[in-house]
Amino acid sequence: MEFISGVREKETVCIQRILEGDLVGESVKMNGAVHTIRDMGEVAFVILRKADGLVQCVYEAGVTKFDLKNLKEESAVEITGTVAPEERAPHGFEIRLKDIRVLSEPAEVMPIAISKYKMNTSLETKLALRPISLRNVRERAKFKLQEGIVRGFRDYLHGKGFTEIRTPKIVARGAEGGSNVFKLDYFNKKAELGQSPQFYKQTMVGVYDRVFEAAPVFRAEKHNTTRHLNEYVSLDFEMGYIDGFEDIMEMETGFLQYTFELLEREYKKELTMLNVTLPNVDKIPAVRFDKAKELVSQKYHRTIRNPYDLEPEEELLIGQYFQEEFGSDFVFVTHYPSKKRPFYAMDDPADPKFTLSFDLLFRGLEVTTGGQRIHDYRMILEKMEKRGMDPADIESYLMIFKYGMPPHGGLGIGLERLTMRLLDEQNVRETALFPRDVTRLEP
Amino acid sequence: MEFISGVREKETVCIQRILEGDLVGESVKMNGAVHTIRDMGEVAFVILRKADGLVQCVYEAGVTKFDLKNLKEESAVEITGTVAPEERAPHGFEIRLKDIRVLSEPAEVMPIAISKYKMNTSLETKLALRPISLRNVRERAKFKLQEGIVRGFRDYLHGKGFTEIRTPKIVARGAEGGSNVFKLDYFNKKAELGQSPQFYKQTMVGVYDRVFEAAPVFRAEKHNTTRHLNEYVSLDFEMGYIDGFEDIMEMETGFLQYTFELLEREYKKELTMLNVTLPNVDKIPAVRFDKAKELVSQKYHRTIRNPYDLEPEEELLIGQYFQEEFGSDFVFVTHYPSKKRPFYAMDDPADPKFTLSFDLLFRGLEVTTGGQRIHDYRMILEKMEKRGMDPADIESYLMIFKYGMPPHGGLGIGLERLTMRLLDEQNVRETALFPRDVTRLEP
Repeated sequence: MEFISGVREKETVCIQRILEGDLVGESVKMNGAVHTIRDMGEVAFVILRKADGLVQCVYEAGVTKFDLKNLKEESAVEITGTVAPEERAPHGFEIRLKDIRVLSEPAEVMPIAISKYKMNTSLETKLALRPISLRNVRERAKFKLQEGIVRGFRDYLHGKGFTEIRTPKIVARGAEGGSNVFKLDYFNKKAELGQSPQFYKQTMVGVYDRVFEAAPVFRAEKHNTTRHLNEYVSLDFEMGYIDGFEDIMEMETGFLQYTFELLEREYKKELTMLNVTLPNVDKIPAVRFDKAKELVSQKYHRTIRNPYDLEPEEELLIGQYFQEEFGSDFVFVTHYPSKKRPFYAMDDPADPKFTLSFDLLFRGLEVTTGGQRIHDYRMILEKMEKRGMDPADIESYLMIFKYGMPPHGGLGIGLERLTMRLLDEQNVRETALFPRDVTRLEP
Repeated sequence: MEFISGVREKETVCIQRILEGDLVGESVKMNGAVHTIRDMGEVAFVILRKADGLVQCVYEAGVTKFDLKNLKEESAVEITGTVAPEERAPHGFEIRLKDIRVLSEPAEVMPIAISKYKMNTSLETKLALRPISLRNVRERAKFKLQEGIVRGFRDYLHGKGFTEIRTPKIVARGAEGGSNVFKLDYFNKKAELGQSPQFYKQTMVGVYDRVFEAAPVFRAEKHNTTRHLNEYVSLDFEMGYIDGFEDIMEMETGFLQYTFELLEREYKKELTMLNVTLPNVDKIPAVRFDKAKELVSQKYHRTIRNPYDLEPEEELLIGQYFQEEFGSDFVFVTHYPSKKRPFYAMDDPADPKFTLSFDLLFRGLEVTTGGQRIHDYRMILEKMEKRGMDPADIESYLMIFKYGMPPHGGLGIGLERLTMRLLDEQNVRETALFPRDVTRLEP
């Protein structure tokens, strides 16, 4: 009988192993994709693309036991060669090739120059060819940073006593009302795709006090803008026993501080490659919704048209204001009007036209919506009645209030938007691996 | 201007803080849900339920500044009291109450006894009342362990150079053919819910070499069995530059070893509470599909009815065989027949009727399917042609092979099934937070 007892050490090495230094002059094996071949006559530079960077390999006719004519770009290979220091090469070393073994070959030549540092390609082309355009080192660096943001979110909240949950995406009814949802037939029952894990994460506050989830959400909005996706990743948390909705803004600030430190520490290479300067988040200003409108109206000589709504241009100006006046890339806008918030939002007892809620703007773009929720059964029934909602429709959600819930609140962060602003991209599709929009369902 | 600068220390303490020992005799504040009230006359025991356990609080008439009559079970409270050692109490301490502040109250009394250690309730009732039945300490412990499994998966793979990805769930076409998919209308285009991130994770091997994702998958199977869910969490990974499909089984064995150690270390409380003994995964036997059928047929005197398929009962017997003969709870069954595997599976060059693939059985239940994939463009076109498939339907997937892919393979693990077997549950619904089955779309 054969037995599997775990991962065996491979003969092939990674870049990190070579950077330890003791392999200089030694013969190593390494695998990777042939990123480019630059043939100089007697010698040729074969650049290998690996997950953690590029490696310069030097081919020398007569020395390397392989005919260069048989090597294709984008082939997967295993090379054997001697490690030598070389300041001008990536990571400061090169490998002098002794042999090349081809593991697999492409059938056709790449239709775009993915090996260029910056691809001069339209977004449209990049997205149509996403499966291969992502092989460009700068393109893939974006999603490495995105990985880092999600890690930061989870690790920070885990350290703060939150439990990670996984809630269903096929649901009987959307959290925020009936419009803008994708409908599907679920064994002859009417179902929808979850617009938000709202009901479920509140439910789980009754179980674990503090919970989080990083998962897809679905919005059938017909907007085709630079900042909307029809499927995106929402970083959600919800916490009980809060003293006020400020607790939620504090937790988000803590998450940003932790995450930017994590990126600085472990994703330095990607930050440098994408020329990203991490914003200072030592302190984030918080301003009331009505006050923010007033400040912007005064400074930029703009008439307030609708005191109960924020136009995208106003969001941009609020961002600009806090950048100019306080040097801050972020601003919490608090106390949104009740009529713009869902029924479960907690109204401000001091003035019920407003809610104990906030958005976080990052350089003028809303990247988070959060706030305190109603926890009292009678209060939520009253608010539903006022809005003409039927409690019978969401009985299993209302159950949590009927049998007792602590004061609580939470937020949802749009991962692609946060990444977009961090990387200073102009279109949210740049920071979605395989974006879904009104016209795009593939790749 | 107000500024938010991160999480401020709260006055309230957690259980862990008290266990540090230096608070004995001190006055503390603590919040939690009133789990039970046991009134003994002059004194009463008020048990607080917190995320990390239960806390015994002692109410004494005349001493505690609160009228016990006004305290309800499932209220959220903040208590003030003195910490005292008490061997018979959970965690070895109790809090002698000075005051109780009610933060919120339920509107009705719980319809089920969630405070009982073991709820004597049918699965049907537990699921119908899931939002509150999860408050039972043993129920919630299950999903705490499930959190640990996902953490183990991510942390282990991260350490092995894998990149975490997030792929779309609304797709143009399913990975494994047209049946058993949930269909939806996507802005007048035909779309489906992803049955698997298969195409996307393979695509990302061309980008990061090694990738993983822990995300929901959707299967419209009409089976209503104890081991099927229509939405479940799939732990997927895919890795390039493999020497053979054994590399994938090795990585999975490494994941199990790492994760069980993590559970042992950080989830001891839950393991004890649920009476779980972690299986030994030092080495896992691997047996060919045809050989496994033969062994079981011989030992248990069973006629082989279909040499190309494995019935659930046969799976159970294979599990039993390897438990009896090798003391192993796990067994890799390898070389599944080609006709039972999807078109992208790599056939065994030695006998193309079989594939370089495997399932992992855990106590006789399939918890993983994996294997090597075809990486050559011509080979995949040929196999599609043989199966009557049209390459035009999945052009953007085939693009990755056209422009070059390394040899690769991967697997998908059913999170709820793995948890189910680990906890020795008889129904997979027990280990899904809010299960979706043919008749269940709520809560």
